[in-house]
Amino acid sequence: MPSAMREGGRLVVVGGDAAGMSAASRARRLRPDVDVVVLEQGRDVSYAACSLPYYIADLVTERDQLVRYDADFFRRERHIDVRLGTRAVELEARRRTVTCEIEGTPDGEVLEFDALVIATGARAVRPPLPGVELDGVFTLRTLADGERIKRFLGSGQVRSATVVGGGYIGLEMAEALAARDIGVTVVELLPTVLFTYDPDMSSIVEAELLANGVVLHKERKVGGFEPGDDPGRVGYVLSGGQRVAADLVIMATGVRPATDLAESAGIELGPTRAIRTDARQVTSEPSVLAAGDCCEATHIVTRRPVWIPLGTTANKQGKIAGENAVGGNVQFGGIAGTNVAKVFDLEVAQTGLTAVGAKAEGHAAESARIRASTRAHGYPGGQEITVKLVFEKDGGRLLGGQIIGRERVAKRIDTIATALHAGMTVADLAQVDMSYAPPFAPVWDPILIAAGQAVKKLAG
Amino acid sequence: MPSAMREGGRLVVVGGDAAGMSAASRARRLRPDVDVVVLEQGRDVSYAACSLPYYIADLVTERDQLVRYDADFFRRERHIDVRLGTRAVELEARRRTVTCEIEGTPDGEVLEFDALVIATGARAVRPPLPGVELDGVFTLRTLADGERIKRFLGSGQVRSATVVGGGYIGLEMAEALAARDIGVTVVELLPTVLFTYDPDMSSIVEAELLANGVVLHKERKVGGFEPGDDPGRVGYVLSGGQRVAADLVIMATGVRPATDLAESAGIELGPTRAIRTDARQVTSEPSVLAAGDCCEATHIVTRRPVWIPLGTTANKQGKIAGENAVGGNVQFGGIAGTNVAKVFDLEVAQTGLTAVGAKAEGHAAESARIRASTRAHGYPGGQEITVKLVFEKDGGRLLGGQIIGRERVAKRIDTIATALHAGMTVADLAQVDMSYAPPFAPVWDPILIAAGQAVKKLAG
Repeated sequence: MPSAMREGGRLVVVGGDAAGMSAASRARRLRPDVDVVVLEQGRDVSYAACSLPYYIADLVTERDQLVRYDADFFRRERHIDVRLGTRAVELEARRRTVTCEIEGTPDGEVLEFDALVIATGARAVRPPLPGVELDGVFTLRTLADGERIKRFLGSGQVRSATVVGGGYIGLEMAEALAARDIGVTVVELLPTVLFTYDPDMSSIVEAELLANGVVLHKERKVGGFEPGDDPGRVGYVLSGGQRVAADLVIMATGVRPATDLAESAGIELGPTRAIRTDARQVTSEPSVLAAGDCCEATHIVTRRPVWIPLGTTANKQGKIAGENAVGGNVQFGGIAGTNVAKVFDLEVAQTGLTAVGAKAEGHAAESARIRASTRAHGYPGGQEITVKLVFEKDGGRLLGGQIIGRERVAKRIDTIATALHAGMTVADLAQVDMSYAPPFAPVWDPILIAAGQAVKKLAG
Repeated sequence: MPSAMREGGRLVVVGGDAAGMSAASRARRLRPDVDVVVLEQGRDVSYAACSLPYYIADLVTERDQLVRYDADFFRRERHIDVRLGTRAVELEARRRTVTCEIEGTPDGEVLEFDALVIATGARAVRPPLPGVELDGVFTLRTLADGERIKRFLGSGQVRSATVVGGGYIGLEMAEALAARDIGVTVVELLPTVLFTYDPDMSSIVEAELLANGVVLHKERKVGGFEPGDDPGRVGYVLSGGQRVAADLVIMATGVRPATDLAESAGIELGPTRAIRTDARQVTSEPSVLAAGDCCEATHIVTRRPVWIPLGTTANKQGKIAGENAVGGNVQFGGIAGTNVAKVFDLEVAQTGLTAVGAKAEGHAAESARIRASTRAHGYPGGQEITVKLVFEKDGGRLLGGQIIGRERVAKRIDTIATALHAGMTVADLAQVDMSYAPPFAPVWDPILIAAGQAVKKLAG
C-alpha cells in the first residue's frame, strides 16, 4: 500500500475523464493541503461519453450539455490544477516522476509526485482496413470524435450509414443515425449482435433493429471502404462479398485499455491485458494507482479479474483511488458487469454471467427464461418483458440475469445485481418482497416469476 | 404441522380472492387426487382489487378486465370446486368440519375437511358516523363496492367528492375521481397523508395533491354526513367544524382482518389482532392454515409479526398455505412491507422501516435523504427523485427506504427490498454495481448517492 501522503505532497492524475476527475476530486476533498495535478491530453475533462450517441442524434443539442463541469470549474471551485493538452509520455514509478508533452510547445516537462493515479481510459480499435483513412469513416470514443461526426452529418449529404460492430455502442449509434432519417446497415462479424448477451436474448434486439428498418449483416467481415463520387470520401463498405453504399461509417469494433504509460513504467498488466490492481486500486508499483477503463476489476461472481470498461466502474474506482492515493484505505468491492442500453424502444440490461459465460467459466449452470407483462392484467399500456436468470444447477446460487423489454427494465436489473452482490440463491430471490401496483408491475413481478421457474428447475 | 394429506382427502379454502385461489391452485397442481373446495361468499373470485381505483377512473373500462379467471375457469381448467354465494359461518377445527350458509337457501351445509385454509381477507372499516347510511357514502374494498361506485358516478350528478382518509387507497381514489373531473377534498385525521411514510416524504405527496387541485384537510375529524336537496342522498360532509359539499363520499378509513371464522374456532390471533401463523402458514390448529389479509406475517427487519395487508403477500402466503395444506413443507420468508402507489404523476414507494418506525421499534436509527435526477445530465426528460434510506447508526445495517419521484421509482424500491432481505449495510449497498445509461439513470444512481451519504453519516 502507498505510504500516507505527506503534508503538502503532490498527487498527479493522468487522464481527466470520469475516473481521473473522480480521483482528483476525492483527494482534494480529503486533503486540502495536497497539490492535485491532472494531466489531460485532450481539451475537455469529465464529459459525458455515454451521451455521445444522443448528441449525435440531436436529442442532446448543445456541446455544453455534455460537459457538466469544465476545467475552469475544477480549477476554481476545487483548486485542482487541470492541465489540458498535456500528455504523460513516460512514467518512472520508483523515482516518482512523470514526463509530459505539452501541446504546441517543443519542450516536455518532468513532474515529481508522491502518488500517481493512472486514469488513461480506453481507446477505440480502428482496424487498418483498406480505405479506413477516407473522410466519413469514424470511430466514436471521445467528445472530439462526437463533434467530428456531428459536423459531418451537418453537411446534410449523409443518406446512408454503416455501423461496423453490433455491440451496444454500435447499436446506440444505429438508433442515433436512424433518428436522423439515415438508412443504417449494421455489420457484425459474429452470429449475433450484443455478444455479451445470450443468443436467445440478443435475438429480441435483432428483431427490434429490423422492425426499425435497420439492415443487419451478421457473420460478415468488413473488407474495407471505397470512395464514391468524391475520391476522398467514403461511398461504399465491403461487407463480406457485398458492396454497400454508405456516406458515413462508424467503426464500433471495440475498445482496448490504454496501457502505454503503465507499460513504460514496467507496471504489471493482468490476464485481460488491462492494468492489474489490488482492491485498493494500487498497481504493482506502490506509488501508482489506476482506475477506470485502463484497469481490471474483480468480478463479484467469479472473483476473477475482468475488463469491462463502464462509466459506473470508472467513477467508483476513481473515487477509491483518489482516497487511497492520499493515505486512505478503502477497497473496491468489485463489479457485476451490470449494464443497460437503449436500442430503439427496447431497454436491454444484464448483470453477472450469461448462460454461455457461466458455462465458459466452468459452472454447471442452468437458466430460466420467462415472458411477462410490465403492468397488471387489465391496466392499459403493459408491455412484454423477458427475464432470464442464470444459476448453479446444484444449490441454485444466482450467477446472472438479463432483461429486455419496453419499459421498467433498467432499474429492474439492479434488483438482480443486488442479489448477486449478496450471494443469493434463486430461492432467496423468489422470497423478496417486491413492489406491486397495477400501473407498475403485475402482482408477481417478472423477476419473481423467473425466480420461481428457476426454483422448479432445481427441484426437478 | 398438518399431517400429510390422505389420498383423496379434502381441502377446503375459505375465501376466493388472491390468497384463497392461490392456495387452491397450488394444492390442485401438487395433488390431483385431492378434493379442493373453495367457499366464497361473494359472486366473484380472484379479482384485481388493486385495480379498482383505475376501474372507477374509467382507465380500466370493463369489469371483465378485473376478473382474469372466473369461477368457471377454476372449475373447468383446474377442477376446483368453487362455490359462490357460500359463507363459512362456523369452524370446528378438531372435528374438521365447517358449516356454511348458502345464499338464497334456508339450510346450511356442513363440510368435512382434512385441511382448511382461511383466506377471509380484510374488510373495510365503516365508522358509525351520523349519516353514513346515506346514498353516495361508500367504502371501497370489493369488486361489488367498485361497481356500486362506478354506477353512482354514471348517474352524472357527481360534481364534488370527499375522500375520508389519506392512506394510499384514499389517494388513489382522489386521483381516480379527479380524472373524472370531479372536485375532490381529502380529509385526514393525522397531520400528514400516507402515515406509513416519514413526514419529510409524505409532504412531497401533499404538494402533488395540491398541485392537482385536491383540497386537503389535515388533522380534521369527520363528524358525519348530511343530505343535500335529495333527503336520502349525501350532500355535505362535516369536516372539523366545516360543512363541505360532497355528492359522493369514499370512506377510506382503513381495513381490519376478517377473523370471525377463526375466532369461532378458537384459533389464536397475534398481537396485531390478525390470525397468528407459523412460517408454514399453519395456525394454532394444526389442520387449519391461513393466508393473506386475514393473517400476520413476520417482518424481515424486525423479525416480529406485523399485519400489512397487500396483494403480493396474499399471493405468496396462499401458494405456501396451499402446498403445506396437502402435505408440503415450505416456509414463507416474511415481508419487508414493500409497497408502491401512483398518486397523480408521482410514484411513491417504500420498503422496510421508516425513520419514525425504526425509532418506535427501538433502533438507534439514522437516515439519509437525497434528491437527484432520474436521467443523466443533459439527457432530456430527467425528473427529480427523492430517496431516503434508514439505517442503524452503529454499523450501518439498512432498515428501510422510501422513494418518491415521477419515473422509475416502483422498481428501484425493489433494489432496497433485496438489500433488506440480504441484511446489507449501507456500505454494502453503496458497492452494488447498478445500471447506467443516460436515458435511464445518472452514472451514480440515486440509491448509490443516498447510500454514500449514509456511509458518511456513519463515519461522522
